[in-house]
Amino acid sequence: MKKQRRRNTVMPIIQMNLLEGRTVEQKRNVVAAITEAVVRTLGVNPDQVRILINELGVEHFSVAGQTAAMRQAAAAPGAANTKEL
Amino acid sequence: MKKQRRRNTVMPIIQMNLLEGRTVEQKRNVVAAITEAVVRTLGVNPDQVRILINELGVEHFSVAGQTAAMRQAAAAPGAANTKEL
Amino acid sequence: MKKQRRRNTVMPIIQMNLLEGRTVEQKRNVVAAITEAVVRTLGVNPDQVRILINELGVEHFSVAGQTAAMRQAAAAPGAANTKEL
Amino acid sequence: MKKQRRRNTVMPIIQMNLLEGRTVEQKRNVVAAITEAVVRTLGVNPDQVRILINELGVEHFSVAGQTAAMRQAAAAPGAANTKEL
Amino acid sequence: MKKQRRRNTVMPIIQMNLLEGRTVEQKRNVVAAITEAVVRTLGVNPDQVRILINELGVEHFSVAGQTAAMRQAAAAPGAANTKEL
Amino acid sequence: MKKQRRRNTVMPIIQMNLLEGRTVEQKRNVVAAITEAVVRTLGVNPDQVRILINELGVEHFSVAGQTAAMRQAAAAPGAANTKEL
Repeated sequence: MKKQRRRNTVMPIIQMNLLEGRTVEQKRNVVAAITEAVVRTLGVNPDQVRILINELGVEHFSVAGQTAAMRQAAAAPGAANTKEL
Repeated sequence: MKKQRRRNTVMPIIQMNLLEGRTVEQKRNVVAAITEAVVRTLGVNPDQVRILINELGVEHFSVAGQTAAMRQAAAAPGAANTKEL
Repeated sequence: MKKQRRRNTVMPIIQMNLLEGRTVEQKRNVVAAITEAVVRTLGVNPDQVRILINELGVEHFSVAGQTAAMRQAAAAPGAANTKEL
Repeated sequence: MKKQRRRNTVMPIIQMNLLEGRTVEQKRNVVAAITEAVVRTLGVNPDQVRILINELGVEHFSVAGQTAAMRQAAAAPGAANTKEL
Repeated sequence: MKKQRRRNTVMPIIQMNLLEGRTVEQKRNVVAAITEAVVRTLGVNPDQVRILINELGVEHFSVAGQTAAMRQAAAAPGAANTKEL
Repeated sequence: MKKQRRRNTVMPIIQMNLLEGRTVEQKRNVVAAITEAVVRTLGVNPDQVRILINELGVEHFSVAGQTAAMRQAAAAPGAANTKEL
């Protein structure tokens, strides 16, 4: 019962920022996997884990002052593989 | 060099809201587990996963208009019902 | 002038995460009602209350590792139990 | 039952940024009032309304490039009333 | 090496909420300018500055309980210039 | 009056996540510099730029599943390689 009470006050509310381009299946897989990871390490109920995905367009995320779109364009010539971007 | 550039633009960036009271070890475990979950399901490098923890005091989180502190007090021995918390 | 200066530094700034599907009228009603609630309880000017709405698609919010889309599908006629969603 | 299903997919998760200095009672009052406002205008259950308070120190909020602390200091000489800041 | 170590722990991760309507060029300019400002004042590497843009529709931002759309409509008759809105 | 109305609806609202350890002066400098950068590139009034700083402890930020505290410890004299942090 003490455990019950403790669980009642937990609340991982998780916001995940992702670049657009993932499939629905990938997004379902990642929220299932994160939820399992949180349940296992924090000892909470699955019901207590809420995840919000915020998907960003390639002009809406920058590193070093350059948007993802600029980086993708720079990486394009000859670059075989940008799928992880 | 190409790889370097690619790594710089990936995400995800994850923000996790937690009620205060977790140990350092628990917090280290949960970020390691979430990172592993994201790497496995999205196929990104571990370096690309950033997690920010936002710890909230028991007066700073409410469900149904009652703060966690109020709910914890209500759940003290003698209180019949904590299931909605 | 003193009043002008004071107004510039107050908050609150409120971010509300909503599943998509609300009408414009509903969204206008809820921000008006929240603003009134904050003004009344915190004693601030209406001008000091800023609200940002973040609307999430049904694949972008999950509870217990299941997205809202999965839960809506499961709750379709024939599904017995949706109370935990 | 349709109503039940609709309610199950709602989720106002609300984050409120406040300057530090409010009493516990004020914070309890404002989350109760916001919850009531959301329930009334969106037709959700109180249980579905989660509010997170993020309290900021006076050096951690700025308008026009000046922190609240700087504004409070500027407003101090002769200014009778800064309690709403 | 000390510098190396210091760089390793920094991380301005910046989220900027903007009303929709800016051009790609404006958004590229503002992230470049913010990055430069952070690098100059905090002494970090450009690579360490990540900026996420969250673009809001005119019904998704309110001041004083009125959405930007309502304010734009109210300001329209005879108002020559609303581009800064 | 028109100007007054227009000012009330503008943004941006910026949230900056920083590891703890900056001085007040550094934080004042960075918000002043960011504000100037935004005013210059987006053509808004300084009053329209609001910045919130969220300061994180060294156990509350992780890259690759390791908290900043773990990385700082690993980077202590004798540790060979910290460049990926």
